[in-house]
Amino acid sequence: MSENNFFERKGPFSLKELFNVKSKEKKIKFVDVKILSSAKKNDITFFDSINYKDFASNTKAGCCITTDKLKAYLPTRCTPVLVKNVLFELAKITKKFYPLADVDYPDTTLRKPKTSKYSNVKFGNNVLIGKNVKIGKNTVIGSNTIVEHNVSVGKNCVIGSQIVIKNSIIGDDVVIQDGAKIGLKGFGFIPLKGKNFRFPHIGRVILKNNVEIGSSCTIDRGSVDDTIIGENTFLDNQVHMAHNVKVGKNCMIAGQVGFAGSSTLGDNVSIGGQAGISGHLKIGNNVKIGGGSGVVKDIEDNSVVMGYPAVPLKEFLKKGQKVE
Amino acid sequence: MSENNFFERKGPFSLKELFNVKSKEKKIKFVDVKILSSAKKNDITFFDSINYKDFASNTKAGCCITTDKLKAYLPTRCTPVLVKNVLFELAKITKKFYPLADVDYPDTTLRKPKTSKYSNVKFGNNVLIGKNVKIGKNTVIGSNTIVEHNVSVGKNCVIGSQIVIKNSIIGDDVVIQDGAKIGLKGFGFIPLKGKNFRFPHIGRVILKNNVEIGSSCTIDRGSVDDTIIGENTFLDNQVHMAHNVKVGKNCMIAGQVGFAGSSTLGDNVSIGGQAGISGHLKIGNNVKIGGGSGVVKDIEDNSVVMGYPAVPLKEFLKKGQKVE
Amino acid sequence: MSENNFFERKGPFSLKELFNVKSKEKKIKFVDVKILSSAKKNDITFFDSINYKDFASNTKAGCCITTDKLKAYLPTRCTPVLVKNVLFELAKITKKFYPLADVDYPDTTLRKPKTSKYSNVKFGNNVLIGKNVKIGKNTVIGSNTIVEHNVSVGKNCVIGSQIVIKNSIIGDDVVIQDGAKIGLKGFGFIPLKGKNFRFPHIGRVILKNNVEIGSSCTIDRGSVDDTIIGENTFLDNQVHMAHNVKVGKNCMIAGQVGFAGSSTLGDNVSIGGQAGISGHLKIGNNVKIGGGSGVVKDIEDNSVVMGYPAVPLKEFLKKGQKVE
Repeated sequence: MSENNFFERKGPFSLKELFNVKSKEKKIKFVDVKILSSAKKNDITFFDSINYKDFASNTKAGCCITTDKLKAYLPTRCTPVLVKNVLFELAKITKKFYPLADVDYPDTTLRKPKTSKYSNVKFGNNVLIGKNVKIGKNTVIGSNTIVEHNVSVGKNCVIGSQIVIKNSIIGDDVVIQDGAKIGLKGFGFIPLKGKNFRFPHIGRVILKNNVEIGSSCTIDRGSVDDTIIGENTFLDNQVHMAHNVKVGKNCMIAGQVGFAGSSTLGDNVSIGGQAGISGHLKIGNNVKIGGGSGVVKDIEDNSVVMGYPAVPLKEFLKKGQKVE
Repeated sequence: MSENNFFERKGPFSLKELFNVKSKEKKIKFVDVKILSSAKKNDITFFDSINYKDFASNTKAGCCITTDKLKAYLPTRCTPVLVKNVLFELAKITKKFYPLADVDYPDTTLRKPKTSKYSNVKFGNNVLIGKNVKIGKNTVIGSNTIVEHNVSVGKNCVIGSQIVIKNSIIGDDVVIQDGAKIGLKGFGFIPLKGKNFRFPHIGRVILKNNVEIGSSCTIDRGSVDDTIIGENTFLDNQVHMAHNVKVGKNCMIAGQVGFAGSSTLGDNVSIGGQAGISGHLKIGNNVKIGGGSGVVKDIEDNSVVMGYPAVPLKEFLKKGQKVE
Repeated sequence: MSENNFFERKGPFSLKELFNVKSKEKKIKFVDVKILSSAKKNDITFFDSINYKDFASNTKAGCCITTDKLKAYLPTRCTPVLVKNVLFELAKITKKFYPLADVDYPDTTLRKPKTSKYSNVKFGNNVLIGKNVKIGKNTVIGSNTIVEHNVSVGKNCVIGSQIVIKNSIIGDDVVIQDGAKIGLKGFGFIPLKGKNFRFPHIGRVILKNNVEIGSSCTIDRGSVDDTIIGENTFLDNQVHMAHNVKVGKNCMIAGQVGFAGSSTLGDNVSIGGQAGISGHLKIGNNVKIGGGSGVVKDIEDNSVVMGYPAVPLKEFLKKGQKVE
């Protein structure tokens, strides 16, 4: 499960083959691109924000794309490649490793499911299943739904109709309602006049046991990291979750909530309808976010917030009184 | 049309079979779960908020799940079953009556429509129709659309492509645009750590004559009650309407508006894009709600409101001036 | 490409055949309905707002539906037809020319694509293609996707699964992600108690080269004019774009943004998630609009705005401080 087998990977590559920037040349060949915490000796990682300095100083990566300012946080075992735009360099070398992960090319291995292979699974009409898809027993998959290659779906799941699932690992007892789109490429690119450079999305969507995804939700897969929804977390309809978001257990997320990328939510978080969560935030455990709020700052455990921008509930109510 | 035939119903059950709480035992067997106003002698109902006291005192139900505080409003003909959490008890007994209404199990009766049965209906390609579906003459149904068992669609309707309709009664001259999902289970459950208890949704979606539903809308069916959209009301794209919402006639609801559950709207209401309507509210006739507003209180007839939270338009404009 | 061949057109019609209002009778027969700037001698146009006076005085239309107040702006070569409700009269005569453009009747010409006709195109499973569809070489179209009659798709495009495209002209190197609905009828009608009068939508959606449309977006076609998205503009998931919106080049539009009809955006505009743009606005070049904003006024080039309603960023930040 830890191996990324959704995209064909090229390589290995030496630093000379990968970069046009100066770096201590080494004979070592690199095999993959990983985040700071999971990269190993033969992986390349990246470090672009002081927020991640603790991960940087503990990384086991053999090489790290970073800036002159940040390089000091890296351990000596890690060769820094110094650049101006970390994400652009990262995008370019990720595309070298994974040339087909920057656009969602439709899966050409889709076929009608073989009943011999999926003897304990119930399928609706016109279901399409890709190569190497695993589906647990007693799972039901509704009509016109597409499950692309290498996806894994657990047992006792109810997957509705007109759904697309790709690049995802889905646990047991998961419910996905009609029309949801899971595991698509996120909205990540380097803006360039005339032709943006798309960031290859080599991450996955991980839905833990007992998750429910409402109708017409869009859950994008991670870019380098994964998008993860914890056990027993329920999403209402038309929720949009961008790449790399991590949601804890037992959360309740109401209709039309939107998440920008890379935020992390704790357990037992509840979010009211149409609220928006900005990117790269840390939302604690047991947080309650009122409907329609716009969250732009980290939120501590056990807080109740509301408003645009979201503030503690007391402050929000006081605000209202002052003006009236 | 008044009989619920979308879900298999078990029973009848005695109070002893249904509850583990104390109650005046009776020999009577109960056949169904209904709301206060429509329950009869052999039905069980529920009463969990003082807002519904007038319905409670007039109910014809033989039994009512309620609290010690509220029981006094019930007529003597109605046996109260006193509990701490009315909705949890309701969910549990509703699941006894309707064991398969808490998750949208894909319809296994879907087939290509028989032209002999639907001689006056035009179908696109790959349309799937469930058992006992009724479709009126001159109705057109677009490609890849799914209409599940027992749904009724009126005459002269234009149902687009890639739509799912279930548990719904649809009038004449209704237009539904591509990708809409109508009649799915709503976002209702008792939150329990590790495994939420889903509320069975035994209600329906009722679309009256001349309704238009925009592309990619999600209209959830009712939990015990129905979700209803009145005559000649038009919804733009990506509107989300939660369970039990009731909308009057001649309303205009712009794109991406979201409704939490159980609110009631009058006639001739207009709602601007991206506005949100909280749950259990009463919005009067001829109300105008500005785009992006967040409505959290009841609104009287003929009001014009705007803002987050929504206030009368004059107040909203004054607010803006004060700050500038 | 300039000829509208998506809808069957009736006519030509004389003014006597079209209107029940007084007008200088002429022998001339009119062939089409066009906007002020593109109408020719044999076309009818309309002029309902002083904002468009410059277009009015330069129009080459032979006839214009307008009001007594506005008629003075029209050149003498253009016969004014004076009415009280310009849009209602326009809707009625547009329906005479295009009787089938007011509802999206599912395309009955859809078939499996002929490999002989599309030898350089890759198709997924169950793709449906209408009559006279043009698709450029190396384009890929995912499973269950529908491309309706007369649509044109450029080369090297990646069109995902479960998409509907109608009444659209799509450039080269365009990416459309799963579940998007492109070219549907917009939310335009004359509200009438009991039965609204739908505005025929005879415009198109034009996606220029290198555009990317996220999953589950809805991009409505124009009413009389077109909806246009400029080169290299990227839209994230669940964006709703109403009829006649025009977006420039190199724009970035984040998830769940909503556009009401007929606004115009310049180049290099970025819009944060869940922002809303009201109708008939002019947004300049290089504008940045913060997430969750509600834009209700025109915005000048190079502005940065935020808030509901959106104000210059400095003002928005000051506002927050005053209240706290």
